[in-house]
Amino acid sequence: MTALDDLLATEAIRLLKARYFRAMDTKDWNLLADVFCEDAFCDYTQAMTDPATPPPSGAAQAEGEHLLQGRAAIIAYISAGLTPLRSVHQGFMPEITVTGPDTASAIWPMADRLTLPPDSPVAEIHGYGHYHETYRKVAGQWKIATLRLTRLRVAHVPG
Amino acid sequence: MTALDDLLATEAIRLLKARYFRAMDTKDWNLLADVFCEDAFCDYTQAMTDPATPPPSGAAQAEGEHLLQGRAAIIAYISAGLTPLRSVHQGFMPEITVTGPDTASAIWPMADRLTLPPDSPVAEIHGYGHYHETYRKVAGQWKIATLRLTRLRVAHVPG
Amino acid sequence: MTALDDLLATEAIRLLKARYFRAMDTKDWNLLADVFCEDAFCDYTQAMTDPATPPPSGAAQAEGEHLLQGRAAIIAYISAGLTPLRSVHQGFMPEITVTGPDTASAIWPMADRLTLPPDSPVAEIHGYGHYHETYRKVAGQWKIATLRLTRLRVAHVPG
Repeated sequence: MTALDDLLATEAIRLLKARYFRAMDTKDWNLLADVFCEDAFCDYTQAMTDPATPPPSGAAQAEGEHLLQGRAAIIAYISAGLTPLRSVHQGFMPEITVTGPDTASAIWPMADRLTLPPDSPVAEIHGYGHYHETYRKVAGQWKIATLRLTRLRVAHVPG
Repeated sequence: MTALDDLLATEAIRLLKARYFRAMDTKDWNLLADVFCEDAFCDYTQAMTDPATPPPSGAAQAEGEHLLQGRAAIIAYISAGLTPLRSVHQGFMPEITVTGPDTASAIWPMADRLTLPPDSPVAEIHGYGHYHETYRKVAGQWKIATLRLTRLRVAHVPG
Repeated sequence: MTALDDLLATEAIRLLKARYFRAMDTKDWNLLADVFCEDAFCDYTQAMTDPATPPPSGAAQAEGEHLLQGRAAIIAYISAGLTPLRSVHQGFMPEITVTGPDTASAIWPMADRLTLPPDSPVAEIHGYGHYHETYRKVAGQWKIATLRLTRLRVAHVPG
């Protein structure tokens, strides 16, 4: 690959991730499906827990619910989680590594603000962390192949 | 256009928008004027209203105040709005599309935090949304041609 | 330099700054050391003070503590400051200028959220501002040569 190929791949992956964020926050599930590989894998087990807070007992058993295999399962999970909420997802400066003509990885700092329905005991959830991702070029289009979210902090704002 | 031309235009537009953000938050109105086309059009009608809150009665009549035609009107509007406040505007991962040698468009996720004067009933306004923009290259410089701000959420923090 | 060289340098500096942010928030001091020139200079004198609040008397005398000469002093200062805290640093749209084959500068908008230990009178500090930086390419790697943080706003959240 030339230096220009590398820049083009990096730019395409930035655009891909921008579409991921917009799809979630505008609840555009068709657009969201389009950013994932058919066989993508997502690990959201750490998404809702502050790293300084021990997880509640029984959490280990429930962990499997947040490991998602395949595009259909991923879209079902995200759309079920976000439909009752308003969400704002923010992506910051990524570290993208192009590892081959059709493969890449990134660490992507992020924040999310979830606004819960008016009668909820928690009014808002503010999360901060990093996506650890790999990408694959499929029929000329970059897609997310694997995604794992780690957290620096998760704060709950009481209702 | 070559792939390199496309990357150069994308990078120039990122830089343009970075200058827009910095100009607003440092109240540098000359710099702000420089980022807009002479005949730019801005639609800030949705800027101050949460999408989940019905606008107050009479809002439709007032809508025209937030539709701005021409650079002079835009700078007058923004500078009048921001001068009494402190503002922080944040831009996240954009979706930039270069549509021709001298034209481009983007959807740009953003957040703003306005800190009102100490005696205000509202202490802060936190907004989240997307800029929908078009750009034009004028005498070798990319400029904002049209801007429309849509909102995911607008929250008021009482004083 | 060609336009492609300029794009490659810009991209390398974006990656450098992404590593700076991640190193601080994951407390990876070896990674943090790697982003600075051996003879780097940092000016954090404005880091903790809101621009609208007059600094406490005696602040001028203490200013020198926040002027750091050399990589070792910088890493000692940042690691001492951040070790007791949890931090989230966010970088937004930068204005990067490549000034030569081995030199560059940038203005980089940023936000940081510091979470203090549970018994602190201040629970959180939220800061917003700009890094003003220069970079040097050393043995093929871009590094931060000088850094100065200016603030738009610093807010303290009581404990």
